[in-house]
Amino acid sequence: MRFASDNSGPVHPKIMAALQAANEGWALPYGNDDLTRAAADRVRDVFEAPEAAVYFVATGSAANVLSLATVTKPFQTIFCTPEAHIEEDECNGPEFYTGGAKLTLIESAEAKMNADALARVLAAKAGRSVHGAQPGPLSITQLTERGTLYSISEIKALSGIAKANGLPVHLDGARFANAMVALGCSAAEMSWKAGVDIVSFGGTKNGLMGAEAVVIFDADLAWEFELRRKRGGHLFSKNRFLAAQMEAYLADDLWLDMARTANASAQRIAAGLQAIEGVRLLYPAAANMIYAEFPAAAHRRLHDAGAQYYPAKGATEGADEAPHSARIVADWSCPDANIERFLALVRGD
Amino acid sequence: MRFASDNSGPVHPKIMAALQAANEGWALPYGNDDLTRAAADRVRDVFEAPEAAVYFVATGSAANVLSLATVTKPFQTIFCTPEAHIEEDECNGPEFYTGGAKLTLIESAEAKMNADALARVLAAKAGRSVHGAQPGPLSITQLTERGTLYSISEIKALSGIAKANGLPVHLDGARFANAMVALGCSAAEMSWKAGVDIVSFGGTKNGLMGAEAVVIFDADLAWEFELRRKRGGHLFSKNRFLAAQMEAYLADDLWLDMARTANASAQRIAAGLQAIEGVRLLYPAAANMIYAEFPAAAHRRLHDAGAQYYPAKGATEGADEAPHSARIVADWSCPDANIERFLALVRGD
Amino acid sequence: MRFASDNSGPVHPKIMAALQAANEGWALPYGNDDLTRAAADRVRDVFEAPEAAVYFVATGSAANVLSLATVTKPFQTIFCTPEAHIEEDECNGPEFYTGGAKLTLIESAEAKMNADALARVLAAKAGRSVHGAQPGPLSITQLTERGTLYSISEIKALSGIAKANGLPVHLDGARFANAMVALGCSAAEMSWKAGVDIVSFGGTKNGLMGAEAVVIFDADLAWEFELRRKRGGHLFSKNRFLAAQMEAYLADDLWLDMARTANASAQRIAAGLQAIEGVRLLYPAAANMIYAEFPAAAHRRLHDAGAQYYPAKGATEGADEAPHSARIVADWSCPDANIERFLALVRGD
Amino acid sequence: MRFASDNSGPVHPKIMAALQAANEGWALPYGNDDLTRAAADRVRDVFEAPEAAVYFVATGSAANVLSLATVTKPFQTIFCTPEAHIEEDECNGPEFYTGGAKLTLIESAEAKMNADALARVLAAKAGRSVHGAQPGPLSITQLTERGTLYSISEIKALSGIAKANGLPVHLDGARFANAMVALGCSAAEMSWKAGVDIVSFGGTKNGLMGAEAVVIFDADLAWEFELRRKRGGHLFSKNRFLAAQMEAYLADDLWLDMARTANASAQRIAAGLQAIEGVRLLYPAAANMIYAEFPAAAHRRLHDAGAQYYPAKGATEGADEAPHSARIVADWSCPDANIERFLALVRGD
Repeated sequence: MRFASDNSGPVHPKIMAALQAANEGWALPYGNDDLTRAAADRVRDVFEAPEAAVYFVATGSAANVLSLATVTKPFQTIFCTPEAHIEEDECNGPEFYTGGAKLTLIESAEAKMNADALARVLAAKAGRSVHGAQPGPLSITQLTERGTLYSISEIKALSGIAKANGLPVHLDGARFANAMVALGCSAAEMSWKAGVDIVSFGGTKNGLMGAEAVVIFDADLAWEFELRRKRGGHLFSKNRFLAAQMEAYLADDLWLDMARTANASAQRIAAGLQAIEGVRLLYPAAANMIYAEFPAAAHRRLHDAGAQYYPAKGATEGADEAPHSARIVADWSCPDANIERFLALVRGD
Repeated sequence: MRFASDNSGPVHPKIMAALQAANEGWALPYGNDDLTRAAADRVRDVFEAPEAAVYFVATGSAANVLSLATVTKPFQTIFCTPEAHIEEDECNGPEFYTGGAKLTLIESAEAKMNADALARVLAAKAGRSVHGAQPGPLSITQLTERGTLYSISEIKALSGIAKANGLPVHLDGARFANAMVALGCSAAEMSWKAGVDIVSFGGTKNGLMGAEAVVIFDADLAWEFELRRKRGGHLFSKNRFLAAQMEAYLADDLWLDMARTANASAQRIAAGLQAIEGVRLLYPAAANMIYAEFPAAAHRRLHDAGAQYYPAKGATEGADEAPHSARIVADWSCPDANIERFLALVRGD
Repeated sequence: MRFASDNSGPVHPKIMAALQAANEGWALPYGNDDLTRAAADRVRDVFEAPEAAVYFVATGSAANVLSLATVTKPFQTIFCTPEAHIEEDECNGPEFYTGGAKLTLIESAEAKMNADALARVLAAKAGRSVHGAQPGPLSITQLTERGTLYSISEIKALSGIAKANGLPVHLDGARFANAMVALGCSAAEMSWKAGVDIVSFGGTKNGLMGAEAVVIFDADLAWEFELRRKRGGHLFSKNRFLAAQMEAYLADDLWLDMARTANASAQRIAAGLQAIEGVRLLYPAAANMIYAEFPAAAHRRLHDAGAQYYPAKGATEGADEAPHSARIVADWSCPDANIERFLALVRGD
Repeated sequence: MRFASDNSGPVHPKIMAALQAANEGWALPYGNDDLTRAAADRVRDVFEAPEAAVYFVATGSAANVLSLATVTKPFQTIFCTPEAHIEEDECNGPEFYTGGAKLTLIESAEAKMNADALARVLAAKAGRSVHGAQPGPLSITQLTERGTLYSISEIKALSGIAKANGLPVHLDGARFANAMVALGCSAAEMSWKAGVDIVSFGGTKNGLMGAEAVVIFDADLAWEFELRRKRGGHLFSKNRFLAAQMEAYLADDLWLDMARTANASAQRIAAGLQAIEGVRLLYPAAANMIYAEFPAAAHRRLHDAGAQYYPAKGATEGADEAPHSARIVADWSCPDANIERFLALVRGD
């Protein structure tokens, strides 16, 4: 019953096989190899973006901070939600990589940015003279850090406001696949067709060992991204092993299959939880991440049985009897039996 | 009727005389001169802090960012209010000088930080692992950016929370003198005796040409401050001209006289405004800065008569007839006649 | 005939097997897993340093820049050779991660730092006031970027000068294993016993997929390193796959076997080249990297046969008939037949 | 006998008068005042550059680092001499303000950059891939830090090489006036007509209290410069007092008069020294700064008489009897009698 994170499960066997295959023979380092070229092409195909610049890094934080650094000046501010990974979980990585830009937190509901609040803040900032941080990129997270989902039109509304202010749009897609299959849309529809300029396209949380793509639709930014990747220490000499993961991920819809499986597991848990008296979902569970609150006794039963999950961020897990929170995340590898057992423990069967 | 800012009026004649006097003869550069030593001693006397390290810079922003950089690690976050100058008006200077630290905005009322909110945020951050920005200094502003005033016990409450979390306390005292005379306390009482570790001690807004002191009560930080000042380009070769201003400022209580005069002027305006129907003070006017709202017609009369003032930050000064806001700041040089005329214009006499 | 770099060959099968084995089951992310603990213990054992802090990153640049950032203040300068990787091949990564420190280049011979020159420069810098960059760490590279080798006493001489000036010592050990087996010493003898404080302990160039360890002998620096790793985007969620590589690398002396094999291959090439008239070794070939100069015709034969290698850095590979340079690097996987063929082509057999 | 630096003497009385005059009445802060506009126009006139952007800062270091930051990317390197102020005397200010760019030191003779060496280094760097720092601006210093002077054609040769590589050219003109009168050329001839793109136009070392102009011939860079100036803490609220200095400096050729006087004083010293047996000029004394070597006994006589000057940088002033060095700088205020007395003491009259 490992629900702590979608980064704690196994790498998919097909990915392991791809790594093994990539290990045949020699290849020039630093991405000057056929596998890197093939994987980048595959990403371009998936995004229907033949002109896009595509790069591979090993962590989601690296994808985010390098993407943002490429489109942010040090005297600008990035607009995101208070729940964004770039604000909460990258230990000032964006401030570091941008050379000291700021993050301005826009009001959110269920971790989704409020478009009116964004427009309001931008209207105020637009009037700022040299004294104030200048408006920089909008960064949105899909799937959000609370497991909620923007509709395409919601993304368009936000990106539209950014565009009207001349600002680029970044999408933190650490759980891009989970969101995409939840929406039933294409990668293009959830990115450039919705006004997104640069995507952190996650893989690590969806069955890879450690590989993310950065997709930059304006290839004029490519060289600056490459330099920033190198100086950040994120250019792999044996880049083919990042590429191999991404190539196999996108081949034969493996990425979609894994995301669908993860989402289905989480949905089964969510449905099960909602049927239990005294259990409350804290956010609409749109994909593979659930926030729920349930009685202390249920937590104790789960804990005693070795179930792994975190409390909701910022929550204090006291010894008292009040209901408290759980963040439950499913990945592609979650056995059905574990789901049943987890629900039985919550119910106290 | 110049009420735009307390940095738009003249330098006090005694300061000009001190600059003239400082121009006699030669002096070693970069602060290795008697005047610099004397002025630093004078600051130490005023603060009753014989061990403090004291430095001079020319702008309040420099004082703030260098102070903060000296006590903040790049992976930390600085706690301040949304209205703080370091958040709103330094174009990411703190992020720049700290090497990419973050600013965490703590809820405020009338631009004064809410102690409970600070405690709550610190409690949440205290539990953060390596993923989150680590707690760094508390920075408070006295006089606040809305002209309001912390009591000594309010400062102690905030610094006490910081201390309990092992965090240093910075005080942005761009209007230190105005606040101090409003409180009727000593410089020590409003700083180290109240738990403050480092002070941006303003002078420019109170009759100087351009000179601020940084007062560091823990002299172990002195050398790092000096290096950061130099590399920021803020070490003056002819440092004696900064020192001369500060020396004359503190001699014979000139600084207190100027602050008292400025405050008295502003209080007359505030009292006059409050007596006018349709005028509303937006914040308690504690010292030399007033925020008020009054009818559009009054704004037009003032404008036509050449009165200078800004709207409240973030306010949109429309052409419509709704009442709108004004920020009115008095300095030491404000003629009484201008105050009367200003009030008469608001009244429409 | 792949001699372009020791990062272009295959990952050793035992490493692939270890990755496969690490993929069994779940593990808590971000290094909170048994494999990470075991691998760190293994590194501590190898270095005979039970108190050392040990971390894993994926690239040698990351190891270097994070190590240096942990022991360098932004107003300091790092001392290294003009040939150092941190100067030549990290695109300002050290300047970036240190928040703007400088690199001071110390005269070298055969890419080894001249101890007298270091002492001379430090004597001059030691007298610097606030205007000059302050002395920071010494960084030396073993094996050097030209394939040459410091003796233990040479390392001690350099570190002794640093110590006498109160400066920490970093060792860029991207080819640590190759150097160590060439010297026939222990890891401890080539590091802390020789005055080294922090080591970038390479693996990627010696048969790993992408894993390096940072070994910090003063564990008081551990937490700062962890924060800097995270904010640099270098903390892997699936950290166990870095650890698995390092664990298998050190088990059963695999790392030493691979390094010995690589060195032996290079030594065969060097010996072969030296026996050929018109061929000149540019540096003493101490381990697995050779710099040689030979006739244009030999280069053409190699090129036509598909041999891969780079010219010496900074060399211009003209079409003319003058002899020109080659950098030839061997890894663990280099087939003997390729060596013979390579030499035959140089000879023009 | 104050020859320590041209920043240790008095401010010219006309400058003091201008500051006094600028103190009449009120002015909008932050450079939105008539005096700032007038002074900027005056600079544009002097440089025959009606389209140039012109800003005022208080220190030469600020002028240099802000200028360089405006034309340098963090992954680039700045080309300068080993003697440059930006390398030697700004405590990593350029690295800080550029967000971590590097400085590449080009071989010099008598502190003047060797054009061939620049061309050679650029040719090597031009071939660098993503691994190496990318070529950034050329920065030259006129008057150099050793008191030597580039001819116009020498500046053109260097800037021509930069231009051929697509690189911008910065001129550190802390002693611009001294150099210009020594050359007998115009400000335009020594800057944009010679290929310079951005100038740190010094005033502080030539009779001002603390004011330098930055002259940017490509006004498209103006807004970025303004933002960087603000975030560096270098935007003065009472900007009129910087402007007043610069305005009076350029009025009625005061700047040229002061520079001519300073140069003439230094030339008298140089001529006098050269006539003394056992005295050796270390560099050609082209303007107002002299480096000389003379017997220890002469140093003792000067020291006992209270003469102020520094040894040459890097020199160790031992008690021994060997001749040692002196850096002697004259400003506009140097009394002739002091020159005579200084020379007499060297001679031991």
